[in-house]
Amino acid sequence: MEAPATPKTARGEATRRAILSAAEQVIGERGFNDASITDITREAGVAQGTFYIYFKSKDEVFAELVVDMGRLLREALNDATAEAADRLSAEKEGLRGFLTFVSAHPNLYRIIQEALFVNPDAYRAYFESFADGYRDALAAADAAGEIRPGDPDVRAWMLMGIAKTLGERAVVWGDTTPIDAVVDAAHDMIVNGLKR
Amino acid sequence: MEAPATPKTARGEATRRAILSAAEQVIGERGFNDASITDITREAGVAQGTFYIYFKSKDEVFAELVVDMGRLLREALNDATAEAADRLSAEKEGLRGFLTFVSAHPNLYRIIQEALFVNPDAYRAYFESFADGYRDALAAADAAGEIRPGDPDVRAWMLMGIAKTLGERAVVWGDTTPIDAVVDAAHDMIVNGLKR
Repeated sequence: MEAPATPKTARGEATRRAILSAAEQVIGERGFNDASITDITREAGVAQGTFYIYFKSKDEVFAELVVDMGRLLREALNDATAEAADRLSAEKEGLRGFLTFVSAHPNLYRIIQEALFVNPDAYRAYFESFADGYRDALAAADAAGEIRPGDPDVRAWMLMGIAKTLGERAVVWGDTTPIDAVVDAAHDMIVNGLKR
Repeated sequence: MEAPATPKTARGEATRRAILSAAEQVIGERGFNDASITDITREAGVAQGTFYIYFKSKDEVFAELVVDMGRLLREALNDATAEAADRLSAEKEGLRGFLTFVSAHPNLYRIIQEALFVNPDAYRAYFESFADGYRDALAAADAAGEIRPGDPDVRAWMLMGIAKTLGERAVVWGDTTPIDAVVDAAHDMIVNGLKR
């Protein structure tokens, strides 16, 4: 009888996560071209052969990393906005959740930005997934009378652009304004821009 | 006696511009690594040796291209906002001017985005120059009572993020909404967000 599959799968999932976290750090710091699979496995503390149990190539681990960071970010945003009473509160807590996430994942920007060149399909899927969800949430809030009527697609891209740029200001430009102060200043313009 | 310098300089400037325009197209389409100086001179219709009269290397033409696109964009924004009566009108015409500029320079995004990897100093200088000017304009508008009081730095990055993202939506994602419709929808949120 072999050992039950569950612990093996959990251990496997932990190894896969360790490789993805190492890829996030190594590719984020050195860039895709200069990062090697050896760098990634050394950072993850696993044997080179172990890498190939989970990923076929550096291209594949990169594509998975983009998907994985999108998934982790979506979870963080869902958690941040779960208690929000309405769309305007969700905007505020979503922005705070986003800035908190990127400060914990400072390599997110370089990785996603490099995806435009390394894997344009992954880049597109990453942003479209956020844009579609955001558009639907804004359209629903408009229908529910929570915000001023307006184009939900344009607004979705505007709000994504605001969050993305404020996050980049912190992690790429090194701005040290506390997250709560940035959120308060930004939300003043957002809430006035969207309220009925 | 040699010929006067002026026509020679004007011709030289035209050649330099032709090389920069060719670099914009070739590097924008193929990416920095895959674009060769031969590709650029062929696109510009000049001899390979002519390239080296103006630029030392592919790195140098890339750095100049980032500076040049920033300068052209600043001129376009100054022209677009020259007649604006106040800050809120300047926001509307500036956004229209920005979207018009990027639709005429569809490779701007890839080039600036790639600068983060090819030449981080040029990337930083490009955005800081816009952020500083924007911050000063917003602080002056606040002091003049044209907009609600608020953090001019955070607002400058927000408004840059809005413009950048709406431009990317058009030229990278292929959205075909007419520029004027995008500007009207976006300005509704901006003007309500900033007005006193």
